Parts: sequence; structure tokens; C-alpha cells
Amino acid sequence: MQPLIETDALIIGAGPVGLFQAFQLGLLEISCHIVDALPRAGGQCVELYGDKPIYDIPGTPRTTGRGLVESLLEQIAPFKPTFHYGEQIATLERQPDGRLLLGTSAGKSFLAKTVFIAAGVGAFVPRRMTVEGIARFEGTKLFYHPDALERFAGQDVVVHGGDDAALDTALSLVGQVKQVTLLFRRDAFNADDALVARFREAVSAGAVKLVIGQPTTFDGTQVQVATPDGQTIELPVDALIACLGISPRLGPIADWGLELERKQVPVDTERFETRERGVFAVGDINTYPGKKKLIVCGFHEATLAAWAATTIVFPGQSIPLQYTTTSTRLHTLLGVG
Amino acid sequence: MQPLIETDALIIGAGPVGLFQAFQLGLLEISCHIVDALPRAGGQCVELYGDKPIYDIPGTPRTTGRGLVESLLEQIAPFKPTFHYGEQIATLERQPDGRLLLGTSAGKSFLAKTVFIAAGVGAFVPRRMTVEGIARFEGTKLFYHPDALERFAGQDVVVHGGDDAALDTALSLVGQVKQVTLLFRRDAFNADDALVARFREAVSAGAVKLVIGQPTTFDGTQVQVATPDGQTIELPVDALIACLGISPRLGPIADWGLELERKQVPVDTERFETRERGVFAVGDINTYPGKKKLIVCGFHEATLAAWAATTIVFPGQSIPLQYTTTSTRLHTLLGVG
Repeated sequence: MQPLIETDALIIGAGPVGLFQAFQLGLLEISCHIVDALPRAGGQCVELYGDKPIYDIPGTPRTTGRGLVESLLEQIAPFKPTFHYGEQIATLERQPDGRLLLGTSAGKSFLAKTVFIAAGVGAFVPRRMTVEGIARFEGTKLFYHPDALERFAGQDVVVHGGDDAALDTALSLVGQVKQVTLLFRRDAFNADDALVARFREAVSAGAVKLVIGQPTTFDGTQVQVATPDGQTIELPVDALIACLGISPRLGPIADWGLELERKQVPVDTERFETRERGVFAVGDINTYPGKKKLIVCGFHEATLAAWAATTIVFPGQSIPLQYTTTSTRLHTLLGVG
Repeated sequence: MQPLIETDALIIGAGPVGLFQAFQLGLLEISCHIVDALPRAGGQCVELYGDKPIYDIPGTPRTTGRGLVESLLEQIAPFKPTFHYGEQIATLERQPDGRLLLGTSAGKSFLAKTVFIAAGVGAFVPRRMTVEGIARFEGTKLFYHPDALERFAGQDVVVHGGDDAALDTALSLVGQVKQVTLLFRRDAFNADDALVARFREAVSAGAVKLVIGQPTTFDGTQVQVATPDGQTIELPVDALIACLGISPRLGPIADWGLELERKQVPVDTERFETRERGVFAVGDINTYPGKKKLIVCGFHEATLAAWAATTIVFPGQSIPLQYTTTSTRLHTLLGVG
């Protein structure tokens, strides 16, 4: 049992809007924790267009998904938010004292005065294999987009998938493991040309085995594969690595009774609060009259939501609006001047 | 009579929010003109904190008022908005066809489908002298913060004021005009020390005459001055230059029937439209539940107001949301890729 983390604010999602949420909370002296299903900050912005240009961030004529996220991380650094990467919020429950109890997929618990859902189109999680009963092998025999490959040393490994990540994983395993097999449904790949060429070379040289077909069963020691010509073959396996892409999933947010409209959470435009007091929704996940799914709008939403949170975190106190240009108090918080 | 300028959009105010308004309109293929009372872009942001730091523009950990405005000018450059500096909008009138007729202090007229009031705390205009009947000499014998000084060659000039602009103007006139007199209410100045020192030297050397007192009358040929010791003196004058500071004035906006609440214009949060159809208000000048006078909020307001304008400029058309990251159409408009 991990200790309960008490916090004024918990932000779900470390995309650009979640990060700026931490900044606005920081200016208002509200400390926060940030949870994201991915192993790093940036969300969609980094996963889908890390190196692609963005031209419509005000005052930034040109940046990239990654560039924007790096700037935001620099901007919020003075407030030292605590990041919890690779975890999904799985449960949300109101406590008798009005606070919110949240549990993560990794078994962590938070007791928060306010919660900011900045989850975009949902948590970016690896697409799962649909073979029946396969989930029970996750973490022991079945791995999705593993970060490190050392644990597979000396093993018989099947990599399932046909994109850059799958081919790259297979090639990285060559020489590290006993046998590498790439399993994909067809003999054509959705990957970079140069990578495909390197992969074909490795197959020709016998370094990687290529099997075309669909996995139908997995019992922890072998994968049964249906080939395009109607045959069934069996592949012995110590570890099965699936690289089937990363896709967004709304996950448990859909079950929290927030009255979803087409997978969006309705909020008001004064506080950007959901129908649950103290639970705010900002960025692409929320909806209200006039809503546009643009980062610039999420920045505004996060700003007003932070102000709304002051009424919960500092009840009865009137907080004056201060400007970062002139306020010595804000300068102290920002660690400047 | 100057020709009537027809436009889809007219933006009043070239501060950061007015500039970003032009950007969002540009992405939606709505061309615009921008009018500002000042001789340059930036508004309050440049006039009041041009060199002061700003830390809360999302994705920009640190900039200055001037830095932000320069970035925004670069960002909107592809859309080539037409700027009209040094002019104030004086009149606004609905035409029978629904468009809005606007007249400027310089006699220009615009016929606009949509108007965006991004006037901040009002137009930054030179503070006027309060001497009775003096307004009739404006432009012939009386000048406020003149841009160029050549026209005063050979004249007897009185400069009224005690700040940097006043002292700097007086010193710049030395050698260009017959006689320079600085008139100020007390023998101490609100100006940079080095400038004051240079000014004192010029007075000692007889290059500038210094008169302490308050102007009480002006008839176009002489200024009557009440001195601190109760005397009245008369100064002959060919031209009177007043440098009494630049201060914001809401001006005619206050008379347009937009139902002001404490000098703010109420708007809805879906379109950021005033009670006049097609007249939007964005940035510090508007008000709505939850309003915070922050630049980040103005950027969002300008974004939704631009989208709302499409229903007037392109009636009956459904405009899809496109992203600057992926849309080739937006790339063409932005002149990239």
C-alpha cells in the first residue's frame, strides 16, 4: 500500500494545457501534482506532432509540438509540480469532507481539494491485442511498447506490429536475444523507407525471422498464427512484444458521472467547472457554447479554472489580480528579480 | 473628402489582443484594417511596459511588452493587415444594409461588416491643456507631442511640461528655432537624471529659457502665466507645444450605446459580441462572468470572436476547424511550406 498523497490540486494530463494549468495555479500559490499515462510530458502535442510546426500560439510565430512543450516545462519549472508519468487515473470518489480521492493504475492514491481534467482526447495508451484471455500475461509475458529491452536478453521474442516502433524494436533486439521474430498481418509496413530497407536486410541475413499472419491464441509459451493462405503455425515465445500504435482512450473519465456529451465534458465558461464541484475540465476534453478545440482556448480555460479553484483552496479569501510585470510577490514565486 | 474604405473587419486598437485578432481573422480568410490612436503598434503593452518583463504568456517563459508586440507583428505579417496609426475612431453608425460606418478623427471613413473593439483601457492620447478656449488653436498654434519639429523653425516656441518628452523636445528645438522656453509648474522635473542635467546646462548657457508657473490664458500669440509667487507674466508665442503625458481615454466608445458597465463593454462568452450585432469586444475592454484582465484571456476571446465573425462575413457557410500543423490551406495563407 502506497502512502496517500494530499494535494491542493491534481492535474490529469501533461499536455500543453495541463502544463499551463500548473503555471496558473502556481501564480496563485496552489501547488499541484500532474498524472499522465505517457512516460513523458506533452501528450498528443508530442506524440502526434512532436516535430511538426505550430503557427498559432500567440506571440510564437513558429514552434513545434516538442518546442512548445519544452517552453511550457521551462515556464512552470519555478513552481516545481510533481509529475507522475506512466500512470492513469482509474478512480475518482468524493470524500465526506468534500475532497476528492483518486487512485491510479499504478496503485497510487491522491486526496485532492481540486482536480483539473486536461486529458485531451483521453489518455494515450498502447493499443491492446484483441486475442482472448491475453490480458493476464501483461507485464510477465506480454509487453506493450516497452521502454527498455534489457530484460529480454537470451529470450525467444516475438514482436507484433508493422510500424516504425515495431521494426525498430525488432532490429534493436538483434544480438541481444536468442531469436527475434516479427509478426505482422501483411508483408508491407507502415514505416520509414530507410528503416524498412534495414529491416529487409536483417531478414535476408537471417538475423530476424518474418512471419506474416494474425495471432489467434496465446498461452504464455506459444502464439498460434493464422496465415493468409489459411494455415495455422505455432511460434514458441518467451516474450511477446506488441507495438500496435498508441491511441487515445477516455478510460475511466467516461465513468465518472460527468454527464458526457459526445465524449466531451460540459463546463460553464465562468469557472470551467464540471457538474462536480472542484472538478474542472480544460482543453480539448471540455465543451461549452462556442468551444473550439484550439490550444489557445485551453490556455484561457486553465487560467479561469485556476482562479475558480482559489474559492475552494482559499475559501473566504479575496485574491487580487496581480501582474507578472509588476508584482514583486509574483516575481518571488517565479524566482526572478 | 477621403474615399470610403470597405472592409470585412475593422479592429480598433493595435495592442496585443487587437494584433492577435488580425491573426485569427487571417486564418479564417477575413481581411482587416486596424486603427490605433498611437503612432505605432503595441498599445498599453509598449507605452507602459515596453521594456518590463512579462512571464505569463503561454509558451513564452519571458518576454517584454515590446518583445511580445514584435512577435505578434511577425506572426500576423502574412495576412498584411492595413494599419491606420495616430487616428481615433470617432463615430460608429449602423447602415441600412447592416454594415457599420465608422469615421476617424483624421477624417477617414470605413464601411465594415464586423468591428472588433480591442481598445484596452481606451485610446492612449496626449493629455490636453485645460486652459479655457485653447482647443481652437490645436494644430495651428498648439501642438501635443508633435512627431516632427521642423515646422517650428525660426519661431518663438514655448514647451509646456516637465517630463522626459517635454525636456527632450525643448532641447531638440535648441538651434532650430528663434527662442525655446520651457514652462512648468515647479522647478523640479519627472525625468531621467542625465536628461535633467543636460537641460539645466542648456538653461545656464542661455540656450533654453525656464519659466516656472501655470498657464492661465492663451490667445494664439501669448501665454499668460501665474507664477508661484502670485505674479502674472506674459510670454510671446508663435507655437505652444504641450507634453503633459499620454493617458487612456475611452472616448467615443463610451457614446456608442454598448451598455457600458464600469467602463467595460458586456459581451457573451460564445461570440464575444456586444449587444450590437457584428460589433465584438475583446481584451481588457470587455466584461463577462469570470472576466480577468489578462492578455492570455484576450487571445482566447479574439479567437472565438473571429469564428463568430464568419457567420456574418460568410453567411450560410460552414467553416471547418483546421490546424496550422496539418492544413495545407492554412500553410498557403501563412506563406509556409
